[in-house]
Amino acid sequence: MFSGAQISLYPMADEFVRIILGSLSALDPYRERFRIETDDISTLLVGPPEELFPAMRDLHVAASRNGVHCVLHATVSRGCPGEPDDPICTPIQGRTSDTPLAQRITDALKAAQGAEPTGQIVAAQLSLYPLGAGHHMDEIYGCIDFLKQSGVFGKSKNFCTTLRGDAGPVFATLGEAFLRFGSPEGHLALDLTVSANSPTSA
Amino acid sequence: MFSGAQISLYPMADEFVRIILGSLSALDPYRERFRIETDDISTLLVGPPEELFPAMRDLHVAASRNGVHCVLHATVSRGCPGEPDDPICTPIQGRTSDTPLAQRITDALKAAQGAEPTGQIVAAQLSLYPLGAGHHMDEIYGCIDFLKQSGVFGKSKNFCTTLRGDAGPVFATLGEAFLRFGSPEGHLALDLTVSANSPTSA
Repeated sequence: MFSGAQISLYPMADEFVRIILGSLSALDPYRERFRIETDDISTLLVGPPEELFPAMRDLHVAASRNGVHCVLHATVSRGCPGEPDDPICTPIQGRTSDTPLAQRITDALKAAQGAEPTGQIVAAQLSLYPLGAGHHMDEIYGCIDFLKQSGVFGKSKNFCTTLRGDAGPVFATLGEAFLRFGSPEGHLALDLTVSANSPTSA
Repeated sequence: MFSGAQISLYPMADEFVRIILGSLSALDPYRERFRIETDDISTLLVGPPEELFPAMRDLHVAASRNGVHCVLHATVSRGCPGEPDDPICTPIQGRTSDTPLAQRITDALKAAQGAEPTGQIVAAQLSLYPLGAGHHMDEIYGCIDFLKQSGVFGKSKNFCTTLRGDAGPVFATLGEAFLRFGSPEGHLALDLTVSANSPTSA
């Protein structure tokens, strides 16, 4: 198993460098369990799939403090056959490949329920890509069913789905989308945009 | 066939609204052939697959004027079985599904050659997702072979590949990656980040 994300923060402010550097301490509680590498385009997080979305939540909420319009983008992936297994990327817990889709929707709703609010409202947009499977649209439609019932559903758009609400339940819902759809051992990618404090928010 | 992109511009400046609005006229030459819809997270472009990358290039170069650090992100898609066919999305021209991978690499290199420079240096990061196919990694590796020979190859990273150079050849290369890999009628998505004027550029 190999799981991780390439993440970027875009604070729409002249002081973007200071804002980005000032938010990085939000990753401190995760550093021990992640490999982290930064270049000029994105920061790689490699580590346990269950911890990716909490880490991204804490980073984005920290960078969005004081009302700055700030977007986080992430290319999230697990099970890519082109990447070596990494012992820091534990398999997804309590999952078997024969759990039916309807059961996984119920499990995802239960797991995302009661997520702690952060006080930061966000809008998120995600596209889920289950790769190498013949029935990728079934998994995508199943995931969209889950998102519609999640309590933070925004709307369906071409190529993606949006969520709206407090960053706590929104990132919890995103995490369940990543963990429970597509084969547990298969290759799955998720293209994610999360926006805070947009002056044109709906 | 349905093809298009959800695109977002992130100028890292206090005047981000003025910069975004000031760049939109760069889309004027394309408006007639595209359906364009904007909300607070992204702008949808639906139209001919060959024109998506030139339109994104012109928009990003316009928003990056005067040295502002500006990122464009796009979720690009074609052939999604969940979308209705749209007459404004013409099929990809001169392509048949039986062209071998090696020939497509040669064709892509030839087509991207001699792209007009724009004067704007950019760094790009892309992930290609051929969906619903059994051999998605073959198409991905074929595309990476093409990118390595493109003259604007940056480096291979986990989950993605980077390109560096003038926006002209970089976007031409990205367009060929989108048009020539994966089945011509199949479902293909591309997760794209393009960055200009980063203070930490490599």
